[in-house]
Amino acid sequence: MTVTIPAMSGVSIAEIVTLVSGRYNGPADRVIRGVATLKDATEDHLSFLGNQSYVPQVASSRAAAILVPNELDADDPRFIRVAKPHAALADVLDRWFNTRKIPRGISPLASIASSAKIGANVAVGAFSSIGENVVIGDDTLIYPNVSVYDGTQIGRRCIFHSGVVIGSDGYGFVTIGGKHRKIPQVGIVRIEDDVEIGSNSSIDRAVLGETVIGEGTKIDNLVQIGHNVRVGKHCLIVSQVGIAGSTELGDHVVIAGQAGVAGHLKIGNGAQIGGAAAVFHDVPDGVKVMGSPALPFREYARRDVAIKRLAKKRD
Amino acid sequence: MTVTIPAMSGVSIAEIVTLVSGRYNGPADRVIRGVATLKDATEDHLSFLGNQSYVPQVASSRAAAILVPNELDADDPRFIRVAKPHAALADVLDRWFNTRKIPRGISPLASIASSAKIGANVAVGAFSSIGENVVIGDDTLIYPNVSVYDGTQIGRRCIFHSGVVIGSDGYGFVTIGGKHRKIPQVGIVRIEDDVEIGSNSSIDRAVLGETVIGEGTKIDNLVQIGHNVRVGKHCLIVSQVGIAGSTELGDHVVIAGQAGVAGHLKIGNGAQIGGAAAVFHDVPDGVKVMGSPALPFREYARRDVAIKRLAKKRD
Amino acid sequence: MTVTIPAMSGVSIAEIVTLVSGRYNGPADRVIRGVATLKDATEDHLSFLGNQSYVPQVASSRAAAILVPNELDADDPRFIRVAKPHAALADVLDRWFNTRKIPRGISPLASIASSAKIGANVAVGAFSSIGENVVIGDDTLIYPNVSVYDGTQIGRRCIFHSGVVIGSDGYGFVTIGGKHRKIPQVGIVRIEDDVEIGSNSSIDRAVLGETVIGEGTKIDNLVQIGHNVRVGKHCLIVSQVGIAGSTELGDHVVIAGQAGVAGHLKIGNGAQIGGAAAVFHDVPDGVKVMGSPALPFREYARRDVAIKRLAKKRD
Repeated sequence: MTVTIPAMSGVSIAEIVTLVSGRYNGPADRVIRGVATLKDATEDHLSFLGNQSYVPQVASSRAAAILVPNELDADDPRFIRVAKPHAALADVLDRWFNTRKIPRGISPLASIASSAKIGANVAVGAFSSIGENVVIGDDTLIYPNVSVYDGTQIGRRCIFHSGVVIGSDGYGFVTIGGKHRKIPQVGIVRIEDDVEIGSNSSIDRAVLGETVIGEGTKIDNLVQIGHNVRVGKHCLIVSQVGIAGSTELGDHVVIAGQAGVAGHLKIGNGAQIGGAAAVFHDVPDGVKVMGSPALPFREYARRDVAIKRLAKKRD
Repeated sequence: MTVTIPAMSGVSIAEIVTLVSGRYNGPADRVIRGVATLKDATEDHLSFLGNQSYVPQVASSRAAAILVPNELDADDPRFIRVAKPHAALADVLDRWFNTRKIPRGISPLASIASSAKIGANVAVGAFSSIGENVVIGDDTLIYPNVSVYDGTQIGRRCIFHSGVVIGSDGYGFVTIGGKHRKIPQVGIVRIEDDVEIGSNSSIDRAVLGETVIGEGTKIDNLVQIGHNVRVGKHCLIVSQVGIAGSTELGDHVVIAGQAGVAGHLKIGNGAQIGGAAAVFHDVPDGVKVMGSPALPFREYARRDVAIKRLAKKRD
Repeated sequence: MTVTIPAMSGVSIAEIVTLVSGRYNGPADRVIRGVATLKDATEDHLSFLGNQSYVPQVASSRAAAILVPNELDADDPRFIRVAKPHAALADVLDRWFNTRKIPRGISPLASIASSAKIGANVAVGAFSSIGENVVIGDDTLIYPNVSVYDGTQIGRRCIFHSGVVIGSDGYGFVTIGGKHRKIPQVGIVRIEDDVEIGSNSSIDRAVLGETVIGEGTKIDNLVQIGHNVRVGKHCLIVSQVGIAGSTELGDHVVIAGQAGVAGHLKIGNGAQIGGAAAVFHDVPDGVKVMGSPALPFREYARRDVAIKRLAKKRD
């Protein structure tokens, strides 16, 4: 499977090089008719080197041209050298090769509360439900089967994938005589501009006040964000991560897949949490933690080496 | 964002103190117009101290009155002392400040099988699907985009959030000659009274007989309950927990976020399983386990200290 | 709760023994009216021994007949000995006791794009959304509230449970000046024949090319499959597993519940990944790994023993 352009005429390598401001010394008039991975590419395809581990695939790839990072220590007449191959790839796909048909406008099969305020150029897919007093900013795209509870505030240019639930009740109970009484969750969720949320992710409303997802943050699939969590701007939260109630993330935080963060913690600006880590303590600005329970990277590595040696010694 | 009461008139602190049976020595006729966290509260707000870690926020809070636990070792004329601040908060919110608009009645956009038996005062949201022979007890609230498969039995006063799936097939296959043959899942799910299930959680039907969620149990978001699991009464199962097939939980079990419990196990009454724990063995009544693989708390702590010392020694 | 047959007449043990090619020495004309677990069975029920840990329940079970493995080292006139009790159970359920009402045909409450190509005898439940240019093979069953994005290719005899999302955008961003720019995800998802996907699982479309789920693979609930992942044939992927982008699985791979596999890895044919494992490296053919981080089983066990001894010594 490869992506082919709508017009059969194709686009020349010269045009691509100009768009991405690349350095290229090969034949510039060759015509590109699709974009593919190194493995899948054929003679009329553009490809890209997105990760050093794929360097061995370059030689055998049939691609006509390959976007590579400026600093790549190898040579090939097919290379188009750029600062960031992924950014160049995005440029090329957006300009010529993105022919996907995504939802446009408000589907007649969506349910929109009469009190909701919907911005300009908003798309809401079939079977999506927009509750009372919801506000949605301009150019936001909501795929089918999304549930937005009452009172949610959504910024501009957001993307919510199918199965997303925004504003469901936080997990708040008080136990009296062995029974769990529900604490009404009367706060809301506020999502700032340019946030993307992956399929089947859940973001709970606050017990009081707001659960907040900051501007430009990207959330992957099946992620849990608890009530009163505050996520900063431009964070990356990868699939199946869970963040428990009232925890606050700074800006530019990265949390890798399946990691969990306990409640009432502070995760500093630029902190990085490794895949499958279990975080039970605050993480200062810029610190990287790993493991379960999560430890600063050096301490994690030190313990790992110590256990490895211990197990060896006992043989 | 704060919660404001519908009538602008507000409610006096005296009325609040009476409702929650609190002890209070400050000015009783002051009018409260909303409830907010310590940080967000302004001069006409009630706030509460839900967790000792927030004590440092009391001094700087602008709240007019604060619900605090009787035993709090500090003093402030704004304190309303009560046995359980969260319970008092719930009382106040339920009485005066819960203005949310939740679904009422059966949405004309829901799909209800003709053989389903729906109790009195049941709400079913848009795009929720209720399968054949489902029974739903009185006063149960089903949000939009919930899927209830055929044969499911649901008690009274339950709450199911958006994206919940009840009664999907258990993961049952028998491998013959390298291929996996499906074992028909002909049992059902039975959910007792007063169960709440968070958004995007899945509860599989039994292969034979029943998967059971006991009375008063509260399940958070993105939780997986396998086929033939039996969860006891008044359990707390936090977000992203997974419980594999045929495992039985006693009553009052607490399982913290992202923990997993293997299949065919018995988890005793009042057992507690820590966050991100991976449980591969039975847990006796009242025992607390942690870690991956999960160990009784003392053993877990002993190993943790041993590894820490070992890593230090090697420096 | 037990399963009862539609006709009240029942089926004789002799008929069951013939169907499953079993060995049986008890009274053959006795009539069976339902199938139940050992614990739940009454005198007119067939039961089965699916797991050695249930042997103690045989003596007290009231079942009239019990499917057991040929090699079981015990005797009882009620035993019907077969090679695989689960397979025999499936045979009996399919033949006489599966009375469930599952969706048939295309629901008038589903949304099917006009460009979608739907095979013969396909079922699509209420509130399921089938995007543009989707292809669905014959005899595939899609439950309510499933979202299939544009361009997805689905084989024959597949089963997708409620809440499944196929073809949502992969998590692809390039960070420029601290902001995350979206890389268009222009590839598709291709699902081969006989694949079952559990409720609330997400399978992302490829950035370029295909995300592939191989023939006969069975995926449980709440599973995440990242963009450009290639899953081989006849794999078992248990609940809440996450597989990050571009990772390739061979055939007959088994991944137990809540395990995670990092991106760009190769997992060999017949590899086995333990529950809650966190895999950060390639796994060769046939190798079994466990733990977080995941290690080959022997190394995992060696470290576990070493830590246990160390902790004991320090007491």
